[in-house]
Amino acid sequence: MRSAQHVDASACERGDEALARAFTLLGKRWTGVVLGSLRAGPAGFRELARAIGGVSDSVLSDRLVELTESGLVSRTVEPGPPVSVSYALTERGEALMPALHHLAQWAKEHLPPPDSE
Amino acid sequence: MRSAQHVDASACERGDEALARAFTLLGKRWTGVVLGSLRAGPAGFRELARAIGGVSDSVLSDRLVELTESGLVSRTVEPGPPVSVSYALTERGEALMPALHHLAQWAKEHLPPPDSE
Repeated sequence: MRSAQHVDASACERGDEALARAFTLLGKRWTGVVLGSLRAGPAGFRELARAIGGVSDSVLSDRLVELTESGLVSRTVEPGPPVSVSYALTERGEALMPALHHLAQWAKEHLPPPDSE
Repeated sequence: MRSAQHVDASACERGDEALARAFTLLGKRWTGVVLGSLRAGPAGFRELARAIGGVSDSVLSDRLVELTESGLVSRTVEPGPPVSVSYALTERGEALMPALHHLAQWAKEHLPPPDSE
């Protein structure tokens, strides 16, 4: 019994470590929202900024660099003129969408917007 | 067609707003890990600190206050002596567990620990 509890506890800790890594990456302001916005398909920088609303260019730029470096988002440069840059979810980023969807559903149901409470 | 696109875009924005609220609450360092640790059942402060590891008492205390105020965690005081305080997931907190589970699964598969890459 004690040994079974020990196994459960280890499994739980490993899950917690994975969660901690996910939140280290996703927990920064706007990251989840940027990924959510890319669900609709590839988008350029200005298109993303408009879709998100309220994010500064420098913060959006930082988040896109982080997401590109983590392999969740790809950055494609189309030679011009004019040169155009577009961002899209990678396979790794797409694989995250069901979890983000669950999280958004939970928030819609359990975290009403401040002005509706 | 244009009108259908408009509807899709609005739905997507609402999802993004919900996601933003979820990440505002959950995105702080340790919050997801605290919730993950409470999956196993109610726990006292020291028990949680031990299970999580690496979190300072003051940060753990702040996170528990936020989670209690958001209605995800309940705080129960058992009159002593000695007085004991325990924390547990509420219904709202339990409802978040499937999404956290998906997120942890994704992280295990797609975000290997730094030393394994």
